[in-house]
Amino acid sequence: MKLHSHWRSTASYRVRIAMNIKGMSFETIPVNLVKGEQASPSYAALNPAKAVPTLVTDDGLVLTQSLAILDYLEAIAPDPSLLPNDAALRARVLAAALVLASDVHPVNNLKVTKRLKAMGHSQDECTEWMRHWMAEGLAAFQALIEQDTPFCFGDTPTYADICLIPQLYNAHRWGLDLAPFTHLTDIEARSLALAPFDAARPENQPDAG
Amino acid sequence: MKLHSHWRSTASYRVRIAMNIKGMSFETIPVNLVKGEQASPSYAALNPAKAVPTLVTDDGLVLTQSLAILDYLEAIAPDPSLLPNDAALRARVLAAALVLASDVHPVNNLKVTKRLKAMGHSQDECTEWMRHWMAEGLAAFQALIEQDTPFCFGDTPTYADICLIPQLYNAHRWGLDLAPFTHLTDIEARSLALAPFDAARPENQPDAG
Repeated sequence: MKLHSHWRSTASYRVRIAMNIKGMSFETIPVNLVKGEQASPSYAALNPAKAVPTLVTDDGLVLTQSLAILDYLEAIAPDPSLLPNDAALRARVLAAALVLASDVHPVNNLKVTKRLKAMGHSQDECTEWMRHWMAEGLAAFQALIEQDTPFCFGDTPTYADICLIPQLYNAHRWGLDLAPFTHLTDIEARSLALAPFDAARPENQPDAG
Repeated sequence: MKLHSHWRSTASYRVRIAMNIKGMSFETIPVNLVKGEQASPSYAALNPAKAVPTLVTDDGLVLTQSLAILDYLEAIAPDPSLLPNDAALRARVLAAALVLASDVHPVNNLKVTKRLKAMGHSQDECTEWMRHWMAEGLAAFQALIEQDTPFCFGDTPTYADICLIPQLYNAHRWGLDLAPFTHLTDIEARSLALAPFDAARPENQPDAG
């Protein structure tokens, strides 16, 4: 499979973690978001949202949107599973994951801060913007997950951890004060000690700059 | 079940449509987002993300995030289903839904435009901001769905239609030029002619202002 991705993209990072946990090999096709390669005609034909990641399977299926890709991976490679079987617990895991994937990440996306800059805002103002939404979202996330398990929802990683670790990468990158989130940084340390998470880190990608 | 919701909230509207399609009755508990009721201590205890909707089941289960709630509804009331069984098609439906639920809606949320205003922007600038992301997202959405079926992915509504109709409500509200999106407005007309969609319309809610 080919994963069109960018080393620093949060959404790409999620898919890398999931594929690594499931032991699925993939070839990385770098898409340089800073240079605008996601808007090239050939890439936009593949992914009309002009975003990463895009997963192209060996039989030519084109999949976009990280959480939709995770859903597909769960279907074709259910072991190990990244979601509980119980419907109620599954909904709790999805809700926590969506707090980061829907409430935080899109508002802090590169194209959003680019637009803020075009509206006259400085990098410092954009950084403050990103920190604001991260602090708010991480507080909600921390309240939604289990308080006494090694990972967000038990003994093994789920979608929640897969969304958390890339979001914390961004939090470090933009200097968010993580003192209120020790439960989350504990989970981060535990996750990054695992090979599937470590191999998925931005700095371990072929296009890392 | 009790659905804590706001009449104009896109995410609440999605859940209302899904519950109506599945024939599930619910009591609406209005949360006035304009007055800030979502940040009250009692509501924040229920939903730490201080957002709507929140679905509380008869046995006290508290569910948040519209797409996580839809997942739960699919599990407990699978007929009629709002997602295809085939993994690849299911991933396509989810990807289209996520373009609206993750890429468009969160960036245009009331709290985001409130913050833009606090940063000195006018209502006109906020309206332009919302139109920009809607136009971009709807173009991607239109390219991702089927081009020749009555609903987004076939003969019956899926998550994609359930995300589309509320997004188009916002598009009308904020005066987006919908001329490039006739395929989408055709689906809208077809959907709103169905009782489950009609009953879910913002103007048909008890808290409509």
